[in-house]
Amino acid sequence: MKRKKVVLALGGNALGRDVEEQKETVARTARVIVDLAQQDLDIIITHGNGPQVGMIQDAMDNLVVMQDNYKQIPLPTCVAMSQGYIGIDLQNAIKYELFRRGIDGKVSTILSQVEVDKNDPAFDNPSKPIGRFLTKEEAEINEANGVHCVEDAGRGYRVVVASPLPVRIRELETIKTLVNAGHIVITCGGGGIPVASEDGKLVGVNAVIDKDNASSLLATMMDADYLIILTAVEKVAINFGKENQEWLSDLTVEQAKQYIAEGQFAKGSMLPKVEAAIRFAESAPDRHALITLLDKANDGIAGKTGTVIHV
Amino acid sequence: MKRKKVVLALGGNALGRDVEEQKETVARTARVIVDLAQQDLDIIITHGNGPQVGMIQDAMDNLVVMQDNYKQIPLPTCVAMSQGYIGIDLQNAIKYELFRRGIDGKVSTILSQVEVDKNDPAFDNPSKPIGRFLTKEEAEINEANGVHCVEDAGRGYRVVVASPLPVRIRELETIKTLVNAGHIVITCGGGGIPVASEDGKLVGVNAVIDKDNASSLLATMMDADYLIILTAVEKVAINFGKENQEWLSDLTVEQAKQYIAEGQFAKGSMLPKVEAAIRFAESAPDRHALITLLDKANDGIAGKTGTVIHV
Repeated sequence: MKRKKVVLALGGNALGRDVEEQKETVARTARVIVDLAQQDLDIIITHGNGPQVGMIQDAMDNLVVMQDNYKQIPLPTCVAMSQGYIGIDLQNAIKYELFRRGIDGKVSTILSQVEVDKNDPAFDNPSKPIGRFLTKEEAEINEANGVHCVEDAGRGYRVVVASPLPVRIRELETIKTLVNAGHIVITCGGGGIPVASEDGKLVGVNAVIDKDNASSLLATMMDADYLIILTAVEKVAINFGKENQEWLSDLTVEQAKQYIAEGQFAKGSMLPKVEAAIRFAESAPDRHALITLLDKANDGIAGKTGTVIHV
Repeated sequence: MKRKKVVLALGGNALGRDVEEQKETVARTARVIVDLAQQDLDIIITHGNGPQVGMIQDAMDNLVVMQDNYKQIPLPTCVAMSQGYIGIDLQNAIKYELFRRGIDGKVSTILSQVEVDKNDPAFDNPSKPIGRFLTKEEAEINEANGVHCVEDAGRGYRVVVASPLPVRIRELETIKTLVNAGHIVITCGGGGIPVASEDGKLVGVNAVIDKDNASSLLATMMDADYLIILTAVEKVAINFGKENQEWLSDLTVEQAKQYIAEGQFAKGSMLPKVEAAIRFAESAPDRHALITLLDKANDGIAGKTGTVIHV
């Protein structure tokens, strides 16, 4: 029987907020991943990088201000750095958890780029906030330099960039080669290094690709059986926070689209996750997307909890 | 006939000094690499990261000083980031050069760790300078925090770390899998992320592994036919800079060791390259190490120039 394949998209709480917390948190995350691996599943792991790439960009921006022999580091390069920063800790934690259980497993992290369409309408309307809160003065300097900022709910200003849809996982063949050789592969960190193709040349673009969207495309192209999107709630709900709130266990693509039309899912929060899940579930028969908590991933794949989205 | 394998160790001048120069310089470097690939050779690329990891460490150190919600980023994590920073530009440049020549080649970059022995005597005598020049005051603060600094030829102070010998390439199997699948693989950037094994757990160590030493070990473990160390001179010389200076084209391991005993090669410059070359050349029969300029790599492998070291 063909081994089943899972793309596991880790949210921020699977990684921790700083370099020390990361090492502790990924140890817990690794236990969940190895539990899945022990069910004879091929595992491909993706992860977010919001706070991490924010820190790196912040550090690099400061450096340019403080020492004029340095040049501005573009966002895609910071994403590449964040893949190194996160990937290696995650890889070592998984490898150690395998070792602790007496399994000689293979784990690898590959730098990965995700291509977007330069004509994606998202570029006309940058909306994804990145990095720390800025003062009004900092925001004005940014605007003068062509970097868009928005005021964020009274807490200050933030840089916003485009969040275009992913169209191609550039390192797909590498990922396939390693998965087929028995590796747990960590890839598409932070939604992938955002690139566009210009006459055959890959060029970094100033954008952030939603990691759930990138994971959905990756799962589709890898011919995965499951896409598991791990987040801060055990299940998706309708009428969230209201008296008639209802947790959903099983959701068809058709129902999910209906709920989206009703405005049931919060923009920038549950909505993109449900949309990413739908895209994967409807890409071919027998593809299941699961949205749940990190700690519930194994129960979820066993059908015991979480929200499953399918055709 | 078995395809021949080459480990190509790129020096600093193959990469450029900042983010903009890097993109231009790697385009030239890629032409040399693809020329080699077109000779039906398997290519594994390693590279230095001195200025790049210095910049990253500098940026991260500043951030901790400026914003107290951030924690110090350890050197191995900065090396991981530098592998992302350099690797992706190098990979894209090679990929584009292949495309430009109508070749559908595969190129991948994997995060890679190199294990050292925690009892390596190098840890008792940190000697490898890293990062920018510091003032006396900065050096004193570092020393108070247990970070060793040395005065550097009247130009200021620098942090020094240990430079232990590499003992194991942790991602060797991943590299082999990808090379066997036809990839040009970029790996062991900056000598690899320095780690030590503690009861099966890989832990980052505060060290810099010489990239030529790491490349020599990698070439040995990959059963490579050639190790090409690219540097700022076309050939190795004896009596360097003197009236009786002599360029060397062909050097046996025995002769090379004799010249080392005579103190012919400069410490921290040509000496570690010759030593790394010797270690590879004497590791098995028919292994050749070549030291030359980036632009001469192809002439060198054809036997037309450079210094070949062999048993």
